[in-house]
Amino acid sequence: MATSELYPFYSKEDLTKKFVSKSIKDVTLPAAVIDRQKVKRNCDRMLDACEELKFRWRAHIKTHKTTELTKLQVGDGNGPANLIVSTIIEAENVAPLLLEYKAAGRAVNVLYSFPVTPGAVERLSQLNKSLGQNGLSLMVDHPTQLESVIAIHKATSIAPSIFLKIDMGGRRAGVVPETEACSQLITSILSLEKAGQAIFLGLYSHAGHSYSSNSQDSALDYLRLEFESLLTTLSTVHAQSPSKQLILSVGATPTTTSIRNLLLPNTPETPAITALKKTISQIQSQNALIEIHAGVYPLLDCQQLATNALPTTGPNAQLTFNDIAFTIIAEVASLYPSRGTDGTAEALLGAGSLALGREPCKAYSGWGILTPWNRVGVSMPSVPLEEYKGWKVGRISQEHGILTWDGEKGEEEPLEVGMKVRVWPNHACIAGRGFDWYFVVDGGREGREDEIVDVWPRWRGW
Amino acid sequence: MATSELYPFYSKEDLTKKFVSKSIKDVTLPAAVIDRQKVKRNCDRMLDACEELKFRWRAHIKTHKTTELTKLQVGDGNGPANLIVSTIIEAENVAPLLLEYKAAGRAVNVLYSFPVTPGAVERLSQLNKSLGQNGLSLMVDHPTQLESVIAIHKATSIAPSIFLKIDMGGRRAGVVPETEACSQLITSILSLEKAGQAIFLGLYSHAGHSYSSNSQDSALDYLRLEFESLLTTLSTVHAQSPSKQLILSVGATPTTTSIRNLLLPNTPETPAITALKKTISQIQSQNALIEIHAGVYPLLDCQQLATNALPTTGPNAQLTFNDIAFTIIAEVASLYPSRGTDGTAEALLGAGSLALGREPCKAYSGWGILTPWNRVGVSMPSVPLEEYKGWKVGRISQEHGILTWDGEKGEEEPLEVGMKVRVWPNHACIAGRGFDWYFVVDGGREGREDEIVDVWPRWRGW
Repeated sequence: MATSELYPFYSKEDLTKKFVSKSIKDVTLPAAVIDRQKVKRNCDRMLDACEELKFRWRAHIKTHKTTELTKLQVGDGNGPANLIVSTIIEAENVAPLLLEYKAAGRAVNVLYSFPVTPGAVERLSQLNKSLGQNGLSLMVDHPTQLESVIAIHKATSIAPSIFLKIDMGGRRAGVVPETEACSQLITSILSLEKAGQAIFLGLYSHAGHSYSSNSQDSALDYLRLEFESLLTTLSTVHAQSPSKQLILSVGATPTTTSIRNLLLPNTPETPAITALKKTISQIQSQNALIEIHAGVYPLLDCQQLATNALPTTGPNAQLTFNDIAFTIIAEVASLYPSRGTDGTAEALLGAGSLALGREPCKAYSGWGILTPWNRVGVSMPSVPLEEYKGWKVGRISQEHGILTWDGEKGEEEPLEVGMKVRVWPNHACIAGRGFDWYFVVDGGREGREDEIVDVWPRWRGW
Repeated sequence: MATSELYPFYSKEDLTKKFVSKSIKDVTLPAAVIDRQKVKRNCDRMLDACEELKFRWRAHIKTHKTTELTKLQVGDGNGPANLIVSTIIEAENVAPLLLEYKAAGRAVNVLYSFPVTPGAVERLSQLNKSLGQNGLSLMVDHPTQLESVIAIHKATSIAPSIFLKIDMGGRRAGVVPETEACSQLITSILSLEKAGQAIFLGLYSHAGHSYSSNSQDSALDYLRLEFESLLTTLSTVHAQSPSKQLILSVGATPTTTSIRNLLLPNTPETPAITALKKTISQIQSQNALIEIHAGVYPLLDCQQLATNALPTTGPNAQLTFNDIAFTIIAEVASLYPSRGTDGTAEALLGAGSLALGREPCKAYSGWGILTPWNRVGVSMPSVPLEEYKGWKVGRISQEHGILTWDGEKGEEEPLEVGMKVRVWPNHACIAGRGFDWYFVVDGGREGREDEIVDVWPRWRGW
């Protein structure tokens, strides 16, 4: 029995029958909602940018863990369907889709982005066999992990591909460029490739610390630093194997989103853009392939807005509350008219850390922002998240969210017991975790924006 | 179709067949492990203390969400099985057990501890009907919620019981004693009772802020403050209805755990104990019934150790790492020999915030502590958590935990890629959320402590 079978879920057919054409106001709360129009636009923007800039593209699917959104991320063209997963169970669940693509003639590859360990060998071997030649890539940042790569090759007679993980400052996983450890690991991977036990496919970086970006230029700088760390490592590879062609795979949603700055009309060429373009040319002159990867970008959340990786206000705004495709819907349960700071009102929301996650956002103190949905006369001002004034989830425990008012006493927008509201969470990857499926609506259907048009089951487990 | 049926899980029988008698070293990781010996001891200690002190007992089941542990919490005597749930889905899932108890002659009552809202009426009505007279209690802290109570009565012709939620300083839910809002709400509840639409059963407090306790005395003081806030409110009730008998239900794990201080041999009677005893006598003289409730105490975690609600060191220690019944088992994936503070080693663990939660602990900076399990020559020093030196989960992201060393460089206890380790999480209620079932071992089976003796499926959803 495959591990994924240990996590049965209610069938898509039955969920569809039960919920489609109902209103999101009529389902059990809290519930997770995705706007199909917004999520498709976010996906298309990324596909278009990569195409225009001639970058390869690899979609991380750990944020949503659904087949349906994976399809939007790779698009319905005939190009390669390259994916990243954070857990083996995601790869197992998405494998049927990849095999469909493969049968239709599309190249497919899934990168298991956690460094490979002995405990992962058995399930990864099954995946390697099922996806076939060039289907599975593994992440490596320590020589001991190569024993697991060899074991997978031995079990399947198919050489898995390897990405070498580079630590460009995030201190999460990866080897540091220009160190003895980095050079030795490259030697070992090259010798594994020579022995036919693995394919050395590329170098990989993830600028997790780019979430601290606060401007287009700083996001672009993080992207350039990702490129540079891989370019430096490429020299180390070329010192040992001069003609080796590699993929340089870079990205975190802030840095990846920032590439659209290279394409926006009337963007002045800032020093950050000039420097980035220079680094990109250097890579291209080295015969390396540029690949972009990201995961949160289809849904977006408060953390991503806070990076300001694209313009967030003005007529040219590209990254606003209106671009967030993922919300949590919940019910107001109680009112506390003057319990807050300076006697402001507070309210109780039926969504706590199990529904919203407990991820901070650097732009404000709180755990989510109330959208204007279902609140008469309320609209979002076009201001950066730092300047937002209104209802937010100010405190949180397991199932309780405390709505607090970020503004003057007496100016609180009215709330009522039983009122249904939606929340933009801080971090979509974590907030989604509590839900077994997403209700899908379509903001493009005027007057029917609350109607459920699809239900996307979400994979669980590891 | 009931909402709980939307969350199918692999059957207990099949999980048992697949896993029982295997070692926890041979399962897919990360995994959640409960030690049956420890959890039973923690449950029995609470039952014994309540019995000895002649307090009623109500078990919160939101931490674990399993039938099996619910049984241990209420014991197998013939006393009442009083429960608290944080979500309706827990009540729906535990209802079959309660009906079994009821059929065997045990009194049962489940309190839905989130203030009742219109969105909850339909499912709560079904529960009220199925559990019958005195089976369902509801929480109220705002007059509008009484409309939902009336609706449930109307739908079922069974008057549900009401607990009035009192805010004794936590500012989460509840009315503040001695306010106009409190007095008016009491009037409304009494008139509902008079009309036969509800039973005014009790007053309820939860000292969530008692997690900030740092000594036995401060936990006892929080407990006394809980009692006093309810006692004050009882006077308001008696001013309107002099002979009304009510349950005063108090507790959060720190305050509830601290009641054992009243029973420990050789405990000197500190001023905190003297003051608490005085408050308890006052309540008893008011013809009120004292009820204790708590939820994390069967599993425990670093947050609970940090409260020092019981002695944590010395021969009389009652709340130590050895009492924590819940651990997360995960695999070490990589080593970074000198990446940490002052050049200390770091390591990568295959358990991030989806497995461990992201709940802080006031006693140290980090997201979990490595247990000595499976690490040769390592044992836990008998020190308060504040003084712990060793491996901890120092940084965290979705699936990555970074093990950092809280000690001197060069003294790091050895770790290896592929090594399986166990982590004491900060907050059991949140860490458990990621797992669909618990593997149960029994520390009392010498030489076979790693053998899986049972599997407890965990309820999902809301």
